[in-house]
Amino acid sequence: MSAQAPHNTLLIPGPIEFDDAVLQSMSHYAESHVAPGFVKVFGETLTLVRKLFQSTNPTAQPFIISGSGTLGWDLVSANLIERGENALVLNTGYFGDSFGQCLETYGANVTHLKTPIGDRTPLEEVEAALKEKSYKLITLTHVDTSTGVLSDVKGVAQLVRRVSPDTLVVVDGVCSVGSEEIAFDEWDLDAVLTASQKAIGCPPGLSIVMTSGRAIQAAQSRKTPPGAYYASIANWLPIMQNYENNKPSYFATPPTQLVHALHTTLTQITADVPGRFAIHTEVSDKVKAAAAELGLKQLAARPECQAHGMTAMYLPEGLVPADVLPGLLKRGVIFAAGLHKEIATKYIRFGHMGVSVTDPKLGHVDNALAALKEALAEAKQAKGL
Amino acid sequence: MSAQAPHNTLLIPGPIEFDDAVLQSMSHYAESHVAPGFVKVFGETLTLVRKLFQSTNPTAQPFIISGSGTLGWDLVSANLIERGENALVLNTGYFGDSFGQCLETYGANVTHLKTPIGDRTPLEEVEAALKEKSYKLITLTHVDTSTGVLSDVKGVAQLVRRVSPDTLVVVDGVCSVGSEEIAFDEWDLDAVLTASQKAIGCPPGLSIVMTSGRAIQAAQSRKTPPGAYYASIANWLPIMQNYENNKPSYFATPPTQLVHALHTTLTQITADVPGRFAIHTEVSDKVKAAAAELGLKQLAARPECQAHGMTAMYLPEGLVPADVLPGLLKRGVIFAAGLHKEIATKYIRFGHMGVSVTDPKLGHVDNALAALKEALAEAKQAKGL
Repeated sequence: MSAQAPHNTLLIPGPIEFDDAVLQSMSHYAESHVAPGFVKVFGETLTLVRKLFQSTNPTAQPFIISGSGTLGWDLVSANLIERGENALVLNTGYFGDSFGQCLETYGANVTHLKTPIGDRTPLEEVEAALKEKSYKLITLTHVDTSTGVLSDVKGVAQLVRRVSPDTLVVVDGVCSVGSEEIAFDEWDLDAVLTASQKAIGCPPGLSIVMTSGRAIQAAQSRKTPPGAYYASIANWLPIMQNYENNKPSYFATPPTQLVHALHTTLTQITADVPGRFAIHTEVSDKVKAAAAELGLKQLAARPECQAHGMTAMYLPEGLVPADVLPGLLKRGVIFAAGLHKEIATKYIRFGHMGVSVTDPKLGHVDNALAALKEALAEAKQAKGL
Repeated sequence: MSAQAPHNTLLIPGPIEFDDAVLQSMSHYAESHVAPGFVKVFGETLTLVRKLFQSTNPTAQPFIISGSGTLGWDLVSANLIERGENALVLNTGYFGDSFGQCLETYGANVTHLKTPIGDRTPLEEVEAALKEKSYKLITLTHVDTSTGVLSDVKGVAQLVRRVSPDTLVVVDGVCSVGSEEIAFDEWDLDAVLTASQKAIGCPPGLSIVMTSGRAIQAAQSRKTPPGAYYASIANWLPIMQNYENNKPSYFATPPTQLVHALHTTLTQITADVPGRFAIHTEVSDKVKAAAAELGLKQLAARPECQAHGMTAMYLPEGLVPADVLPGLLKRGVIFAAGLHKEIATKYIRFGHMGVSVTDPKLGHVDNALAALKEALAEAKQAKGL
């Protein structure tokens, strides 16, 4: 029995439903951010982030900072690239556009490689772009929350190392970390930024960034000072190193309750990282098969481009999200409407991550699929379709 | 009876002890950040921030953003001043130094007016400085957490309006909002930045900034784009306006649980804002009288320079914080060591804010004063003083 108040099941691509223990950690009593108890928890949480990324390289460095996932873009843009340097954005939707704007704010020259909705950037196009100009960094959205498109992070990273080895590989993993495989060291990535509230299963409010030794080196060998103060790697690096070495340190007050919640969920997740990816794949396959059976096509047409923590599905011709979402809500299930502005009224999004996936006893996914079937039938009937 | 797990009483100048209802709000079940229920709560919370600042001017604009108090410095420095413009920092300790660094990161020319430890900047010095150069903005730390010095915000604001009316008046209220009087409209302030975890009585993780119409105008009439992306007023302004008008809006995912907790505490505080300041003054007077009786001198020598939410006290000659803090802890009370680097080993800090002050039945302050008396006697005896 859950200790949580009765509520509709939140199955959007983040925030997601919480495990009871995680939510209980949020109401931890008041603690000093520099007291031994909290210093230990924060230090351990940083070490758990390494485990989450399957990283053992001691030059890699995790950051946990009070902020939304968006703050990770500033951490990258204000530290890893300088005014006038080139950035290549593999743009698979809404979040590629925004990351590009953030990079431009800090003076980068941004080139977007745009792909049709539902597809990922072909490696040949990336290779051609990399051969045309010298890029300080390349960014890709691992899972685009607006479309459910999964990018080929491993393939892009391999390509970059072959064609342009000094280019930093930056992954927006807000909607992937915790549900999609990421082998940070093995894939030789330079920065993966994410947030607490999606597949990591913690309430929103933490920006989590994993960086390579190469990225830290780039930040430390800048010719110009960092472009931001709160998002400055130079300001946070000693803090993270000290906490992980069990020493209190101060730059800004960490959100102690959220850090406790992150500690709880990462302890659960890192008990079996490959198992976590496997179950997300298994449940995703089930959702996608059920959607196909209902005649719903995914935005991401090709299976290799389909995320495992969410499914973005076109509605049948003649229906808009407002025809279907209320029918789901009536059955206790919350999905999200479309977000990609060109086609927002044509599709809905189902987030299947975290406890809703790992704890089948909750029945979240089965109930959602049953509710979807009924709500669709109801909507079609109402529209005479 | 509190629902909280037994723990030592946290009486540092933030984070502080929580009211049970506030802490319970932290474990609110999962919610979409754009669902009607949360949109309403976020919108109301913004309106409560106006009440907290005793502001009714519709051109004033509150911001509530996921981040630490430090992020407020970026919001000011990246939006209200442009590269090459002048900023005057009234520097009463650690936090004036850091705010200056933040302003410099975004290209401001910073002049510090430093005062001896424990004192506030004399108005004549401020006036002389304002007459010497044209300043885009002036910053002052309302209560310097490192020293417990209270600045004369009203006096400085009046002076600025008389001598240099276009200069923006920016107040670092991280350690003052909720325990010191601030009349935002009446005092004609332009920006007050604060954080959730001090006298506001919410867990850490929210940057809260109140801005005037004049400040918004300055941000909107910049000749150059804002210096930051996550800390950009242009990016957040429509979001805050939409939520307060009960419309969902997205720039970055808000920390839903923390917003619920802020809503709960601000509902409590704004039920009687003048009463809140009065009780903080009353309890502060009691603490300061008790400290004097124990022979402890404050860093802020003059009464008008003494904060009402904390007391920074010199230890007797021969004692350092490590002689006294363990004796307090043994008695269930947590004070903070010194923070101002020149004299950090010579003093301790006692935070008396929020529920520890407003709910005398908890006995926090009385117990702390008794514990301080015993711990001091014990430490003196151990040192043969």
